[in-house]
Amino acid sequence: MITAKLPHVFYGGDYNPEQWPEDVWRDDMRLMREAGVNLVSLGIFSWAQLEPRPGQYVFDWLDRVMDMLAENGVLADLATATASPPAWLAKLHPESLPQDAEGRRYYPGGRQHYCPNSVAYKRSAADLTQRLAQQYKAHPALAMWHINNEYGCHISECMCDVCAAQFRLWLGARYKTLEELNERWGTAFWSQHYADWDEILPPRKTPAFCNPAQQLDYKRFMNESLLALCRAEAEILRKTTPKVPVTTNFMGFFKPLDYFQWAQDLDVVSWDSYPDPNGGPDEYTHAACSHDLMRSLKGGQPFVLMEQAPSQVNWRAVNAPKRPGQMRLMSYQALAHGADGIMFFQWRASRAGAEKFHSGMVPHGGKQTRVFREIADLGQELKRLDAVLGARIEAKVALVADWQSRWALELDSKPAHLDAVPHLRYCYDLFYQQNIPVDFVQPEGDWSQYKLVIAPVLYMLTERAAKNIRGYVSSGGCFVMGYFSGIVDENDQIYLGGYPALLKDVMGLSVEEWCPHPQKCVALLPGKSEEIPCSTWVDVVNAKSAQASAVFASGYFAGKPALTINEFGKGKALYAATLLEPSFMSWLMSGFIEQLGIGPALATPRGVEAVVRSKPGRQFLFLLNHNPRPETLDLDSWSGKELLSGKTVQGWLTLEPNGVAIVERKKQGG
Amino acid sequence: MITAKLPHVFYGGDYNPEQWPEDVWRDDMRLMREAGVNLVSLGIFSWAQLEPRPGQYVFDWLDRVMDMLAENGVLADLATATASPPAWLAKLHPESLPQDAEGRRYYPGGRQHYCPNSVAYKRSAADLTQRLAQQYKAHPALAMWHINNEYGCHISECMCDVCAAQFRLWLGARYKTLEELNERWGTAFWSQHYADWDEILPPRKTPAFCNPAQQLDYKRFMNESLLALCRAEAEILRKTTPKVPVTTNFMGFFKPLDYFQWAQDLDVVSWDSYPDPNGGPDEYTHAACSHDLMRSLKGGQPFVLMEQAPSQVNWRAVNAPKRPGQMRLMSYQALAHGADGIMFFQWRASRAGAEKFHSGMVPHGGKQTRVFREIADLGQELKRLDAVLGARIEAKVALVADWQSRWALELDSKPAHLDAVPHLRYCYDLFYQQNIPVDFVQPEGDWSQYKLVIAPVLYMLTERAAKNIRGYVSSGGCFVMGYFSGIVDENDQIYLGGYPALLKDVMGLSVEEWCPHPQKCVALLPGKSEEIPCSTWVDVVNAKSAQASAVFASGYFAGKPALTINEFGKGKALYAATLLEPSFMSWLMSGFIEQLGIGPALATPRGVEAVVRSKPGRQFLFLLNHNPRPETLDLDSWSGKELLSGKTVQGWLTLEPNGVAIVERKKQGG
Amino acid sequence: MITAKLPHVFYGGDYNPEQWPEDVWRDDMRLMREAGVNLVSLGIFSWAQLEPRPGQYVFDWLDRVMDMLAENGVLADLATATASPPAWLAKLHPESLPQDAEGRRYYPGGRQHYCPNSVAYKRSAADLTQRLAQQYKAHPALAMWHINNEYGCHISECMCDVCAAQFRLWLGARYKTLEELNERWGTAFWSQHYADWDEILPPRKTPAFCNPAQQLDYKRFMNESLLALCRAEAEILRKTTPKVPVTTNFMGFFKPLDYFQWAQDLDVVSWDSYPDPNGGPDEYTHAACSHDLMRSLKGGQPFVLMEQAPSQVNWRAVNAPKRPGQMRLMSYQALAHGADGIMFFQWRASRAGAEKFHSGMVPHGGKQTRVFREIADLGQELKRLDAVLGARIEAKVALVADWQSRWALELDSKPAHLDAVPHLRYCYDLFYQQNIPVDFVQPEGDWSQYKLVIAPVLYMLTERAAKNIRGYVSSGGCFVMGYFSGIVDENDQIYLGGYPALLKDVMGLSVEEWCPHPQKCVALLPGKSEEIPCSTWVDVVNAKSAQASAVFASGYFAGKPALTINEFGKGKALYAATLLEPSFMSWLMSGFIEQLGIGPALATPRGVEAVVRSKPGRQFLFLLNHNPRPETLDLDSWSGKELLSGKTVQGWLTLEPNGVAIVERKKQGG
Repeated sequence: MITAKLPHVFYGGDYNPEQWPEDVWRDDMRLMREAGVNLVSLGIFSWAQLEPRPGQYVFDWLDRVMDMLAENGVLADLATATASPPAWLAKLHPESLPQDAEGRRYYPGGRQHYCPNSVAYKRSAADLTQRLAQQYKAHPALAMWHINNEYGCHISECMCDVCAAQFRLWLGARYKTLEELNERWGTAFWSQHYADWDEILPPRKTPAFCNPAQQLDYKRFMNESLLALCRAEAEILRKTTPKVPVTTNFMGFFKPLDYFQWAQDLDVVSWDSYPDPNGGPDEYTHAACSHDLMRSLKGGQPFVLMEQAPSQVNWRAVNAPKRPGQMRLMSYQALAHGADGIMFFQWRASRAGAEKFHSGMVPHGGKQTRVFREIADLGQELKRLDAVLGARIEAKVALVADWQSRWALELDSKPAHLDAVPHLRYCYDLFYQQNIPVDFVQPEGDWSQYKLVIAPVLYMLTERAAKNIRGYVSSGGCFVMGYFSGIVDENDQIYLGGYPALLKDVMGLSVEEWCPHPQKCVALLPGKSEEIPCSTWVDVVNAKSAQASAVFASGYFAGKPALTINEFGKGKALYAATLLEPSFMSWLMSGFIEQLGIGPALATPRGVEAVVRSKPGRQFLFLLNHNPRPETLDLDSWSGKELLSGKTVQGWLTLEPNGVAIVERKKQGG
Repeated sequence: MITAKLPHVFYGGDYNPEQWPEDVWRDDMRLMREAGVNLVSLGIFSWAQLEPRPGQYVFDWLDRVMDMLAENGVLADLATATASPPAWLAKLHPESLPQDAEGRRYYPGGRQHYCPNSVAYKRSAADLTQRLAQQYKAHPALAMWHINNEYGCHISECMCDVCAAQFRLWLGARYKTLEELNERWGTAFWSQHYADWDEILPPRKTPAFCNPAQQLDYKRFMNESLLALCRAEAEILRKTTPKVPVTTNFMGFFKPLDYFQWAQDLDVVSWDSYPDPNGGPDEYTHAACSHDLMRSLKGGQPFVLMEQAPSQVNWRAVNAPKRPGQMRLMSYQALAHGADGIMFFQWRASRAGAEKFHSGMVPHGGKQTRVFREIADLGQELKRLDAVLGARIEAKVALVADWQSRWALELDSKPAHLDAVPHLRYCYDLFYQQNIPVDFVQPEGDWSQYKLVIAPVLYMLTERAAKNIRGYVSSGGCFVMGYFSGIVDENDQIYLGGYPALLKDVMGLSVEEWCPHPQKCVALLPGKSEEIPCSTWVDVVNAKSAQASAVFASGYFAGKPALTINEFGKGKALYAATLLEPSFMSWLMSGFIEQLGIGPALATPRGVEAVVRSKPGRQFLFLLNHNPRPETLDLDSWSGKELLSGKTVQGWLTLEPNGVAIVERKKQGG
Repeated sequence: MITAKLPHVFYGGDYNPEQWPEDVWRDDMRLMREAGVNLVSLGIFSWAQLEPRPGQYVFDWLDRVMDMLAENGVLADLATATASPPAWLAKLHPESLPQDAEGRRYYPGGRQHYCPNSVAYKRSAADLTQRLAQQYKAHPALAMWHINNEYGCHISECMCDVCAAQFRLWLGARYKTLEELNERWGTAFWSQHYADWDEILPPRKTPAFCNPAQQLDYKRFMNESLLALCRAEAEILRKTTPKVPVTTNFMGFFKPLDYFQWAQDLDVVSWDSYPDPNGGPDEYTHAACSHDLMRSLKGGQPFVLMEQAPSQVNWRAVNAPKRPGQMRLMSYQALAHGADGIMFFQWRASRAGAEKFHSGMVPHGGKQTRVFREIADLGQELKRLDAVLGARIEAKVALVADWQSRWALELDSKPAHLDAVPHLRYCYDLFYQQNIPVDFVQPEGDWSQYKLVIAPVLYMLTERAAKNIRGYVSSGGCFVMGYFSGIVDENDQIYLGGYPALLKDVMGLSVEEWCPHPQKCVALLPGKSEEIPCSTWVDVVNAKSAQASAVFASGYFAGKPALTINEFGKGKALYAATLLEPSFMSWLMSGFIEQLGIGPALATPRGVEAVVRSKPGRQFLFLLNHNPRPETLDLDSWSGKELLSGKTVQGWLTLEPNGVAIVERKKQGG
């Protein structure tokens, strides 16, 4: 349970009472009760209202809101309000405005207009956090702290002189000597040798490709600069309210922040999910995948869906409304994948500002609207699901996700550009379509609970990660690696002598060349005539101990292996030298999965998701119908109470379009 | 008549003698006579020649030009020459250079490189205007003043510190208190509250969407900053030469300037029209539509086509020449729609500079060219049309065009991006294709002369406008409103409680949701089976007193009205909840138009335009054949003298490709 | 022979030992011997290693490398190392960083981050050059000097204040008086008159099109600024080592530098060729065309292919490897077109830096790789070709390539954008496909050796060039000119009175109008009915003495000539008023070529190249099969020794895919 103060599924949204006159607040309380709201994220963008002039704090209005919430049985996920500094900060400290690679400042008028290394910003943010903690530490409405908001979503990099100076200190701490930095950055190339720390700059606009190690370290530095802001606030809050959990809202596969690192500093993972209602299978699959990533960040601990849209958003080219039932379905999908809280942005749709066309739980049209009715219905329905709280997902399959490798992979100047996330999705989808749960792991993490671990394009491979993989396979694990893996070390320096470096013996092969985007490329299974299309990439492989499961049938590399399997220690290591068409891979993996004893939650038609959450003695089967038609399912061995209807189900069950069922069964001795 | 000094159709062009040696001037005079030129726009880009060093004025060459013109019977639309400051201004006053949202200055080397709020520019421009007025106030060649040139065409916004300071003053005058500004701008959103006027900035580069009210007010401020420049010059000119009309050249639907506002300060509306000769029906329809807008700015008063190309322009990706006859046809189209002057850019094609490949009335090849022959023939021909001067167009249909609403509509962060002008064109074309004249009106204007007024996407609706509409309908008018109307007030703040706000009772309905870009959307007429495609947008409508004329047959809003009609007071109010395919709307409107007694000028084949200009006792029917084949027309009740040929026509008339006829008939008691 | 020191085909690559520990150097020497390397380009990016702090030179490591090379029989094309300044230069002299048109600086982190007019850069570069010359002037390994590297490849224009000041001086020297500059730049247009030299700026960001003469002169100024850098280094080197040839590496049709001008200052032309291995016929034809241009720069003198990729590059979106045999084939193509040296970037593939995925002669995988095997095989094979050194190509056809005209043509604001190089390629391909050798000439050059000279879009035509053309034709030459030629003088000022100006009598016609991108345009041969598609452009021509060979059959210019021929003096002048489809032109030119007695080297199937290099008494026929299948050729009159196999060939010869043969025959009395 996330906090003992709220032993229910969290339900509510961002609450910005400062945008409305106080008489609206009273209406808010009535509507929150009607909608079953039990938690609101309060004051996220209220810094300028809390501190209208430097050092002049005005908390009375927030006092009244907090009191009113407490009176109405609603708890607060109280913000530190540091996400958007007041205009006076920019006026007093123009150097606090962030600067891009071309030297252009970002100005106030939007939000997040602060340099992550600005001393003035850091001091003011810390002061405000301290004041808020002090003011509300004992308030009965306080349930959780909401640090800042979506760190880095607009400004994930600043290139100003303050950052440059800080970067040099960060580099000094990392490399100790300039000699070491020159070696690690490969500055012998293009005459980039540094003779003085002060010569080093952020990767600003350069005439030609900027040094990749410099770029990579700047990504690390910026990730850590932002994390330092979060840590500074967390530390203040924990000193004052040691028992109140802290969170900040993540953004799924957001590239600039290494959330595996961030999650260690937070009590609760929470995140914001905005699938496109028009997006179809790709979007709901991506939502599922992202939930699984978020759940994995803290080892499977339930997370909070901190923001989703009640209906439309405002920032796409076309902002489709969620159709009737769609918001409910996506909410239950989050629960199915491990969420213990379903929250929205925002409670009441704004009248003014850049997000006024973002839908709210209370639309501009008020409570007599389809959207509010669906919100209120869901809020009441969720009250039946206290039992699910804390239940976990037991995955036997893991995908290797590594922000560090991704940062390096997606730099310029590669044989061809490859993106990490689509490769993860390619793998994820193979399992998702079979209702097999998947976790995400780091390359250096503990993989002992998994029967199968897959690492697509693990471009950067550290020695520790290689050791981890070696140990996993030799102890009996099954490991699958994709092309263009094991290429560089942590400074983006290429390993010499063939790939995947450090693991050639484990994989039983050595890669000699890369052929990106091969033309009309096909592979064959040995002894079969069916051509399997492949795309995106070809590693030209020299097999050693590995056996070819498929070979290329075209290109100058015809006859070379496209897919190999190698016995190593007690385990198996597979290598995919190309991207084989998903339907073939799906068929291939099926057999493999069966062999490893990795079973699906339930066999369902395409478009119907089945996920199981478990806790000692109890299992909850979530069934979600994403199809625009009713689907009838064979429940197989599942029978028990369907929690939303309260009825007992077994045998066949029909789900309406957007329909959801949650079947609970008792487990023996769990 | 625009000026008693020139009781003929104006004919001529921009005359830039400073680009040529004086012996060419004498050739110019001969050729002007040959071409029937009676007016030239003189000296528009001659500031640097008139004031080569600050305060050192050199007018002798212009004296000689003016004298020569007078001697040759050509009048001058004399420029104030302030459109492109000399290089010395930038050198002495670098702060006079405009700055974009990213802080980049624009440099000399092109034209219009001045900040509209630059004190140095304003002072120098005023001095030059004063000197010119003084110098030529009594010159016999002076017929009209041409202020500046195409205000804002390149630099319609400057974001410099001078503008920032001026913007604050402008805001102070508009909102009086900071509290009011904070309220109107919705600064409670994203922590944008201002505690001091000095914190306010132009909408420069921001990390996220910039405050929309700030953006909107900046558009107003820039429009007014430029207008202030124009007014300052007009004031100087009127003091010195109270009887000489002043104009500045407009640019049709140019977004940054609210020409309804500007026209009030000018004696004559003039504008520059550059349809693409390769553009086909869309381009000549757009030209007609733009002429009608220009004519509407001063309540139907004849305007001047100040610039058009004799043949090619130089600034498109592909600059097609006007084919033989095309320049003549487009010139007569301007006359048909209310012009009393046909002018060109420019008299003599330049040898050097950025526009040297822009065609001239006198091409680089001289007078022995197709282009000059067509120019000279037209000049002689226009002499037969003195009678048409001052005649007006009597429209019963009006379209609502509102720059303010357009500015707000086209800001970022909407359900989907909608452009105002294509919506006006969609409506315009329905009437244009039937030869029904159309005026443009403002939402708060006097609509009493119109039987039908149409407002597509009138996104911003002020209380005064709503009152105007209510009064119009209740008094018997017929009003059609399109989707996404009545959404926000003048500060882009959303009205609560359903749309179109302030007019729900007039329209008899309330809009609850928006679904932009619906997929495969169709509507049905009640009781009919033909599916009518619709696109772009769906308003989900709850009908009250309104009757559905068509309903949606697909989407989650199936069964909701797509088109409604409501009886209100003595009038009717129609609402279109989607964009129905034009052929259907055209068919629908036909019946409706007949019912309202709005007749076409004449029924003609597609591609042949018929427009009537009238004056007391006389009517002129313009017939224009845009098709590449001859067209034979039934003149119906029209008979009389065809002014270009001098022959009497009745019954059937054949127009050649690009052919034109102007039939005059006497009216009873007009 | 390029240098007596190395009487063999140069073979080697860029050698950057500073990127590797010294034990790798010893391996380098072994592998160089194995690969037949005889020359390396040394130290191109080693400035920061040679002068780690200002004025502190460290040459000992380079001494060791030079000694080791000498010991191993490898010579050095020693770099002046000035292509990428050390980071300290930017720190000490921030003004040395280049600035773009929008005022943005380029920072260190890549390479080439220097303003070409920076005094600090120039002084430091000269000092380093002087030191290097002094240090190695007598070293036995020194064979050639490699000045800088690919001048201008990233930074071909700087717009900073230093450049502005220098530009004014340059203009002062060019135009003497401001009056003259105003006249030549056409500053009477748009009020751009200058009253003081200090008012003149580089063509920075302007609100509208920047003055074209200003843009054009800035291109000249920047070309000369960069050339001045090259000349300064060459002068230092020649003073110290008068007998060592100097070169800098060119980049084919690179637009910013007028290589005809540059070649005069160098002893050897060398260049870098990077065709896309996936690019097919267009890419290998372009490589051939570029070789021919490079060969033409110094009147046919053999050049050096200074850089090519052993396999992949790193800077395309998709970087395909060279397939087996492709690198060898492209190397022999260079030899066939006049190269006496085949070099690579780079010797050993880098582990770090922006180009680490650029292939090397020694791949990351070491010598046990396909790429190294092919490199080593070629190195050994080339040793059989000493006889070819110095042989020349005898062309009877020339194409007019003029950087000055191209700069003007490709400025903005034309009837439509036309690019010069595709027009040259259109012409080139007609001959290339028939194995007819082509040279490139300047418009003012000596054309006496050519039977046929073709000038497509010679937009700018100087009086000297017109005189040259007139003389060529009247003396019996055959000259073909394409549309939009003879339009402007050297200041981009339009000639009046019809085109091609200065040559209307030579061509026997006058162009009155231009119609760019005509729609569905066709031409007809007189008396024939087959329609010949034409595109891109139409000159509307009034024929005088010229005879129409084809006439337009559509458009408003139907009946006007599309292609003309005029007898003038003893010669013929053809004019193409449009772009006729290549197959038609190819057919047309065939007859014409036969008539002029211009024969192909050998008739071959499409995709097989035949080129002849000759020297007194000997001819070498290069045969290159670009097709993916074997091709069997009829050697016709050719018989003799095939140099690669050592066998005597005659009659029929079969070339494998990527196959090459070089047949030598003795000539009578050559």
